[in-house]
Amino acid sequence: MLTRIDHVGIACRDLDAKIAFYESVFGMTVASLEVNEQQGVREAMLRVTGSAAGPSYVQLLEPLAPDTPVGRFLARRSEGLHHVGYGVTDITAALAAIGATGIRLIDERPRHGSMGASIAFLHPADVGGVLTELVQAPDAAPM
Amino acid sequence: MLTRIDHVGIACRDLDAKIAFYESVFGMTVASLEVNEQQGVREAMLRVTGSAAGPSYVQLLEPLAPDTPVGRFLARRSEGLHHVGYGVTDITAALAAIGATGIRLIDERPRHGSMGASIAFLHPADVGGVLTELVQAPDAAPM
Repeated sequence: MLTRIDHVGIACRDLDAKIAFYESVFGMTVASLEVNEQQGVREAMLRVTGSAAGPSYVQLLEPLAPDTPVGRFLARRSEGLHHVGYGVTDITAALAAIGATGIRLIDERPRHGSMGASIAFLHPADVGGVLTELVQAPDAAPM
Repeated sequence: MLTRIDHVGIACRDLDAKIAFYESVFGMTVASLEVNEQQGVREAMLRVTGSAAGPSYVQLLEPLAPDTPVGRFLARRSEGLHHVGYGVTDITAALAAIGATGIRLIDERPRHGSMGASIAFLHPADVGGVLTELVQAPDAAPM
């Protein structure tokens, strides 16, 4: 069902500073920089690997306001790992299969994620405390 | 410097139950099941992807006792994302380069990780709250 670890999501207070940090310390490169009003974040995808077969990213998330999911996460837990995103080839089929196991879906239908992907989150309380995201790359995404 | 996301580490209370969960819900497969006395964990590596080029894993961590790093993490934060591990080709060189930036190294020298890898942790306080691990696969590991 899952093709790879697409990204790890990291909550931070100062996106530009963290981008500079990951670029200079780890040699990552910015693949996209976006504002997602729906999710209440300004975010960057930093490419970890140059493999064309299946790139993986660090997704840095800065909240647009305190009263957003990432803003509340920072207030509660401070900066750090926020979620993990797994690649899937068919997000609609994956959501149906996972929903059938009884896991609650935060997103019953896919919505827009970074770089044109279709994404959906699963409820962390049903995945051992891990906020889990499914990511279907845009080239094959039926939204 | 980094070749890929090698794994995400997830702290849990019942390793066997979580293995069964990740197998049945997400179709992951167990690549290794080990006890690491030095780190105070019983752990499983579950393969996310079948790609031979660069497999990625979910690492499930169950503490051997409450007074261990993962035991304390569970007491403080409950189950969930614990760390991220990045692949490197030369862990000694990577540690030297990262240490030179001023980031504190939990492990000044590599030690033994899952599946024969050489690993080292960076201090989360210097990496934006993210416990960060470097992983060199065993086939090229000079320990």
